[in-house]
Amino acid sequence: MRPPALSAREIADLLRQEFPQAFYEGCGLTIERVDYAAVRVRRHFHEDTLRPGGTISGPTMMELADFAMYVAVFSAIGAQPLAVTTNLTINFLRKPAQADLLADAKLLKVGKRLAVGEVTVFLDGQEEPVAHVTATYSIPNGAG
Amino acid sequence: MRPPALSAREIADLLRQEFPQAFYEGCGLTIERVDYAAVRVRRHFHEDTLRPGGTISGPTMMELADFAMYVAVFSAIGAQPLAVTTNLTINFLRKPAQADLLADAKLLKVGKRLAVGEVTVFLDGQEEPVAHVTATYSIPNGAG
Amino acid sequence: MRPPALSAREIADLLRQEFPQAFYEGCGLTIERVDYAAVRVRRHFHEDTLRPGGTISGPTMMELADFAMYVAVFSAIGAQPLAVTTNLTINFLRKPAQADLLADAKLLKVGKRLAVGEVTVFLDGQEEPVAHVTATYSIPNGAG
Amino acid sequence: MRPPALSAREIADLLRQEFPQAFYEGCGLTIERVDYAAVRVRRHFHEDTLRPGGTISGPTMMELADFAMYVAVFSAIGAQPLAVTTNLTINFLRKPAQADLLADAKLLKVGKRLAVGEVTVFLDGQEEPVAHVTATYSIPNGAG
Repeated sequence: MRPPALSAREIADLLRQEFPQAFYEGCGLTIERVDYAAVRVRRHFHEDTLRPGGTISGPTMMELADFAMYVAVFSAIGAQPLAVTTNLTINFLRKPAQADLLADAKLLKVGKRLAVGEVTVFLDGQEEPVAHVTATYSIPNGAG
Repeated sequence: MRPPALSAREIADLLRQEFPQAFYEGCGLTIERVDYAAVRVRRHFHEDTLRPGGTISGPTMMELADFAMYVAVFSAIGAQPLAVTTNLTINFLRKPAQADLLADAKLLKVGKRLAVGEVTVFLDGQEEPVAHVTATYSIPNGAG
Repeated sequence: MRPPALSAREIADLLRQEFPQAFYEGCGLTIERVDYAAVRVRRHFHEDTLRPGGTISGPTMMELADFAMYVAVFSAIGAQPLAVTTNLTINFLRKPAQADLLADAKLLKVGKRLAVGEVTVFLDGQEEPVAHVTATYSIPNGAG
Repeated sequence: MRPPALSAREIADLLRQEFPQAFYEGCGLTIERVDYAAVRVRRHFHEDTLRPGGTISGPTMMELADFAMYVAVFSAIGAQPLAVTTNLTINFLRKPAQADLLADAKLLKVGKRLAVGEVTVFLDGQEEPVAHVTATYSIPNGAG
């Protein structure tokens, strides 16, 4: 199995340096596992992410999935802080209860200009996913 | 032209009553215009919505588009607080500068069980859109 | 493991009876494997499916993915010939060479009114997918 | 208003030359109107495009929308025969009756590497759309 371009620790350090506003001690996001083109990230439960009815909001799930994809891109091609999401499709499957959310991202394609991946979002300790996402990242400094 | 099922004021009152956590005086969202199945909503600029680089974050645009769709569903079929998004596709087109965001939602189909619409998100005063969204809402109490 | 609602043979018989124009001896589509909410189908290679450049066309891949989803819906909830696709997102990952295409469909949600699934399309004998699809089916006679 | 990079006739000539297998006299597709980044194309009705129940098949609508996007890309940036669809989302809105289908494509973004557009598919003579598509094209020889 091919090793990741950057480890979980290296990606966390890079994000803290490049994006201190978004990724910092206590922001609620952690990187749990990093393999090549396949990562797991966590959103620690916080009441701010609730929407009426007591379930975690859709934008919270989208943000987590987008973060997971971003980490997955780094795991495959190294530091690319200028990579941007160009397209994202989310299917909401079940209403998430009040618990930590996990997101498993897997890249389906790592091209010179585009990376495409899918993300499964689920509650820690539950098997059935609460949301499924596919997304495309554009890699600005790609060779293609 | 068919009149909307509820006016902008009626929808705002309903949202304040049903979802006081999400829609309240000072939440940053306002309903600008409501026609039948076609509405405009606004996200007033706030620094909290910025992401690294100084542009408005993707989840902020998704949240605004989702809100616009929700208001559009109400404009067509009246109060349906249990309507939920089942699917959302967003294309990010340009990086939004620091200004108010507007979202124009238009329903493409108003069925018994599903409503499908598209949303164009743009900066107030600019013509070129920053994001385009299509979304499907499920209407739980629909007759179908 | 939960058994499928219908076997591969039962689904093939049903399709031949209900949709003789689309599913018949020699149509190029076969059902390879049916588990509960997870199936594999095959599109036998035919020159008619080529597009300029000698690769299999996008609509051919979409049609195959849609067929896989349809069979997967049957595997989970039994005969529902009136189920219809409401939404489909396809990501084209690699240009497929001239060979049989396989599609693995897995349902992510089986609701009363909606079924959501994902499909991976790949060439027989190759590991890397050529396309990835998510799709939603509406189940007209659902109880919801 | 900015003129198109190529006229309808120039695009048709180019397609006949580059893709004689797909675009030829009698193939059923015609280019009706070409403005800059906005075009209309037609699929003449043919029984081969029907699916069980007598409605036009989903892949037929997807193929038409994809063709419309391709022509729209040419209208904006000139001859780019190597442009390829990377992503396509289709919402099926109504079952199309047996008539000519029209597709209006409009580009939302014309970038150096990516073009994003939306397509509305409807029956000739009817106002309500039968399908709505958003799609992204990758432009291989782009400067970015």
